[in-house]
Amino acid sequence: MVFWKKLFSNSDTVATSETTEAGNGLLNSDSDNSDLPQIVFSTDRELDLYELEELCDRVGWARRPLKKVKKAINHSFLVVSMWEVKNKKRRLIGFARATSDHAFNATIWDVVVDPTFQGRGLGKAMMKYAITQLRSEDISNITLFADPQVIDFYQRLGFILDPEGIKGMFWYPD
Amino acid sequence: MVFWKKLFSNSDTVATSETTEAGNGLLNSDSDNSDLPQIVFSTDRELDLYELEELCDRVGWARRPLKKVKKAINHSFLVVSMWEVKNKKRRLIGFARATSDHAFNATIWDVVVDPTFQGRGLGKAMMKYAITQLRSEDISNITLFADPQVIDFYQRLGFILDPEGIKGMFWYPD
Ligand SMILES: CC(C)(COP(=O)(O)OP(=O)(O)OC[C@H]1O[C@@H](n2cnc3c(N)ncnc32)[C@H](O)[C@@H]1OP(=O)(O)O)[C@@H](O)C(=O)NCCC(=O)NCCS
Ligand SMILES: CC(C)(COP(=O)(O)OP(=O)(O)OC[C@H]1O[C@@H](n2cnc3c(N)ncnc32)[C@H](O)[C@@H]1OP(=O)(O)O)[C@@H](O)C(=O)NCCC(=O)NCCS
Repeated sequence: MVFWKKLFSNSDTVATSETTEAGNGLLNSDSDNSDLPQIVFSTDRELDLYELEELCDRVGWARRPLKKVKKAINHSFLVVSMWEVKNKKRRLIGFARATSDHAFNATIWDVVVDPTFQGRGLGKAMMKYAITQLRSEDISNITLFADPQVIDFYQRLGFILDPEGIKGMFWYPD
Repeated sequence: MVFWKKLFSNSDTVATSETTEAGNGLLNSDSDNSDLPQIVFSTDRELDLYELEELCDRVGWARRPLKKVKKAINHSFLVVSMWEVKNKKRRLIGFARATSDHAFNATIWDVVVDPTFQGRGLGKAMMKYAITQLRSEDISNITLFADPQVIDFYQRLGFILDPEGIKGMFWYPD
């Protein structure tokens, strides 16, 4: 029995913090690895909103009313969180969510990895996990709006910029 | 009593086909104008999917499984349809829908106006109607992905292309 199954109702271990590729087998392990930090992905949307706010603070995002964040999470099609699990404690280190029509399109929003954990392939692994989840729901058109400094990050994951000249457009109230 | 109130549970008359700006007053009229064609907007999602398919056929869009279209409509945050109402009969002449997290963002998809009715300001009126609906739900960030030939159309409505370098990106299965 692997301990993080108790911590998450809906989770996968995809990577340890030591190696981002080889962690899969751990899910089937019966040994207690709780001393080694593990990276766990979850689609459980029961998140501590204060913990999420702290994560977003750490990358410098503007604060948003928690009531609206809660509503947005409840009405997202997919909510992905990434956790470091160590000594039976978990810590939120990544987040992403997607809106969708449940049929054709999904749009990914709010992709974030804790700065301490950036640059280790974890953002990539979390995005791959999100894509796998969306694909398993038969969503074929996965879209997003990328800030200029992360276009490369998404391109490496196979996202195409302005395919066939299709352009992202925004309307804001005056 | 204005007849189209019987035809739609959730509708507004925004324009006649004669004048696209001055039709509003008709909603309050008690005279029976049913001989003059009226343009009516609705957020009712009980649509005849075959009629919608015909509309999309007329602009050359690839057919999509009706079961998936139905699912997408059911899971859209906003569904807008535009109708010509004449002699107590209605005809679907425009459509648009939006996905959303119900809090921050909405993304508009499948904007279409019957070719016979294009170039009369009706697409613009329908989009303004959609924006008003989204704004009334407190959505501030309205987004879309525009085909190259309609970027101008959306710019005239106040949509901004790649604001602050934010780029639309798509991921498709191999
Ligand atoms: C963008 C972000 C999620 C990336 O997470 P990460 O864990 O650091 O990314 P990874 O380590 O998995 O990087 C995967 C690949 O993308 C590259 N990459 C990561 N961030 C990049 C960036 N900002 N610009 C260009 N390339 C980047 C990495 O070099 C790596 O390349 P490789 O596959 O060739 O080795 C993270 O930097 C972040 O949270 N940033 C702040 C919030 C933000 O800007 N979110 C996006 C809003 S649209
Ligand atoms: C795009 C579409 C919805 C526009 O509807 P419409 O009723 O013809 O548009 P309108 O008459 O309201 O035009 C409003 C304004 O946009 C302009 N416009 C309309 N279509 C345009 C186009 N394709 N390119 C540039 N400008 C356009 C009009 O000249 C008008 O300008 P004005 O306000 O200065 O007078 C319609 O042409 C359509 O259904 N096209 C096929 C489907 C499609 O491509 N949908 C978009 C997918 S992203």
